Amino acid sequence: MYAIIPAGGAGSRLWPLSRRDAPKFLLDLAGDGRSMVRATVDRLAPVSDGALVVTGERHARRVADQLAGTSAEVVAEPSPRDSMAAIGLAAAILDQRHGDVVVGSFAADHVVRDDVAFHAAVRAAVEVAAAGYITTIGITPTEPSSAFGYIEQGAPLADLPGRAVVRFEEKPATARAEEYLASGRHLWNAGMFVMRTSVLLGALDELHPGLATGLRRIAAAWDGPTRETVLAELWPTLDRLVIDRAIAEPLAERGGVAVVPADMGWSDIGDFAALAELGERPPAFAVDADGAWVHAGRPVAVVGIPGAVVVETPDAILVTTREHAQAVKAVVDQLDGPLDHLR
Amino acid sequence: MYAIIPAGGAGSRLWPLSRRDAPKFLLDLAGDGRSMVRATVDRLAPVSDGALVVTGERHARRVADQLAGTSAEVVAEPSPRDSMAAIGLAAAILDQRHGDVVVGSFAADHVVRDDVAFHAAVRAAVEVAAAGYITTIGITPTEPSSAFGYIEQGAPLADLPGRAVVRFEEKPATARAEEYLASGRHLWNAGMFVMRTSVLLGALDELHPGLATGLRRIAAAWDGPTRETVLAELWPTLDRLVIDRAIAEPLAERGGVAVVPADMGWSDIGDFAALAELGERPPAFAVDADGAWVHAGRPVAVVGIPGAVVVETPDAILVTTREHAQAVKAVVDQLDGPLDHLR
Repeated sequence: MYAIIPAGGAGSRLWPLSRRDAPKFLLDLAGDGRSMVRATVDRLAPVSDGALVVTGERHARRVADQLAGTSAEVVAEPSPRDSMAAIGLAAAILDQRHGDVVVGSFAADHVVRDDVAFHAAVRAAVEVAAAGYITTIGITPTEPSSAFGYIEQGAPLADLPGRAVVRFEEKPATARAEEYLASGRHLWNAGMFVMRTSVLLGALDELHPGLATGLRRIAAAWDGPTRETVLAELWPTLDRLVIDRAIAEPLAERGGVAVVPADMGWSDIGDFAALAELGERPPAFAVDADGAWVHAGRPVAVVGIPGAVVVETPDAILVTTREHAQAVKAVVDQLDGPLDHLR
Repeated sequence: MYAIIPAGGAGSRLWPLSRRDAPKFLLDLAGDGRSMVRATVDRLAPVSDGALVVTGERHARRVADQLAGTSAEVVAEPSPRDSMAAIGLAAAILDQRHGDVVVGSFAADHVVRDDVAFHAAVRAAVEVAAAGYITTIGITPTEPSSAFGYIEQGAPLADLPGRAVVRFEEKPATARAEEYLASGRHLWNAGMFVMRTSVLLGALDELHPGLATGLRRIAAAWDGPTRETVLAELWPTLDRLVIDRAIAEPLAERGGVAVVPADMGWSDIGDFAALAELGERPPAFAVDADGAWVHAGRPVAVVGIPGAVVVETPDAILVTTREHAQAVKAVVDQLDGPLDHLR
């Protein structure tokens, strides 16, 4: 299996830690001394034959610095064209180089605490994918989260360590999420897809032929002298699609998608509430402030705000609560004019 | 009238702005470019013939710096002996110098926004005090505060611009404070006392003769060569009393205390809720955070905490709400060991 790691999202709900020039995948949010993209490459090394990290030109050099000492390679996008183009380009390059191989796409900015369970799930997914399925790894839900999409699993596949996917569900309201949790049939969609390059590119040929043609032409030129000119010519013409909608959902309707359930301490660290779940960071002084979480370079006192979140950087301070962590994005949306430098 | 300005309290509910070495009376909380003690001296200048600021030796030099260009004088206490000794010493010194004169004591760290009303109240209080009453200026309450003591006023005095004081009331619970507010007879006790030195010292002679004797002996030596030796010998022996309990409450029982009501935009700025009342300081970014108030050297974002209070100093950050402002004192009570330097 070759790993494809799209590294794109800024992580604006983690402002002021995350910035335009310090996106989430370059931060060390797990506190283990590695950027998230490097931790992702390291996590995948035991179960992959190589890795392509697809990122914007703006971040390519810093991502490459993070990958020093690994065999992972950077694929630089001239501009953002969303996940289907990013993953599709990497898959087409790998197909060009190695023929029909199994590839797996994994976000560059998620955390997995149980590597053993993760590796077992990937190996199972590779086995299912080799048989021709687009295979997702679905996370066993631990709470009725409305921050994730869900996967409804169906019957076990014959002789394969996975189940059919009945359908993908949008991010639900909380009441619906509680039904999903109670059903035992629903898993969180963590955006992990494992499949043969022939299956991925074949699906694109059928469903998005313009995109498929463009990606194949770029891939054919990738390891030769015309990469830059072909990329500059074709990349801006590619359709902007996300992989779920572009191929996973349509193929699920015809029984072409499988899922491997996994319980592996996964988090997308989507906001400060999720980050706070990773580890306690109590303030120096807490008065009536259970569950307060701080990231600051000086002593912080929290008085009367349970679940407070206080984040200090050299140029800004954020004060919120775990409950309101999703609303932090609204701050970033306000950053313009004289405060654009804080973005 | 000679003004006596005790400058003692640290203002621990205003931590981290207020510190052991930056007590409240040395801060510019009103934001008008002056420390509170200097603003107090300036406010009293039009209605006084001079001022003595009584403060600890630790702060005497910095208080003197604040008073440059005024005729006010610093009286340095070797150690804190509470308000009765501080005010009594200043009164005894003034009595020694000028004979039986009217003095008025006013806290060094309160705010008055209506100087005209304040001056009118002081002039009225001086007239009542000249007739022999210990005269307090009582603040017309604007809310059922449980943070202040109350004064119950009785009948008007014949031919004098004041009323008898029936009694002083402790800080009440909220329900009781609401009764006081509804009664129309109760005023806030702002700790302002105007009286003849003969009345003050006479009351001490009767009620606290040891303290009276000590203060008279120190005052007699104050402007001569033995000040330091007499002060060092006697000051540590003086009783620790507050002026309300020591003389105002006992004399009120026998009809010797009067009150002049005043509505003058007074605040003791007792906590950040009171400071926030002085002026809006919204955060740079507010999402669901009406009434948030910040004091910081960088942009602050507040998300989901109405009435949040965020205060940054170079060595600490406080996050609380207006509602919990009184509880900030609990933080200062925790400042010891390795964090004693933040006190």
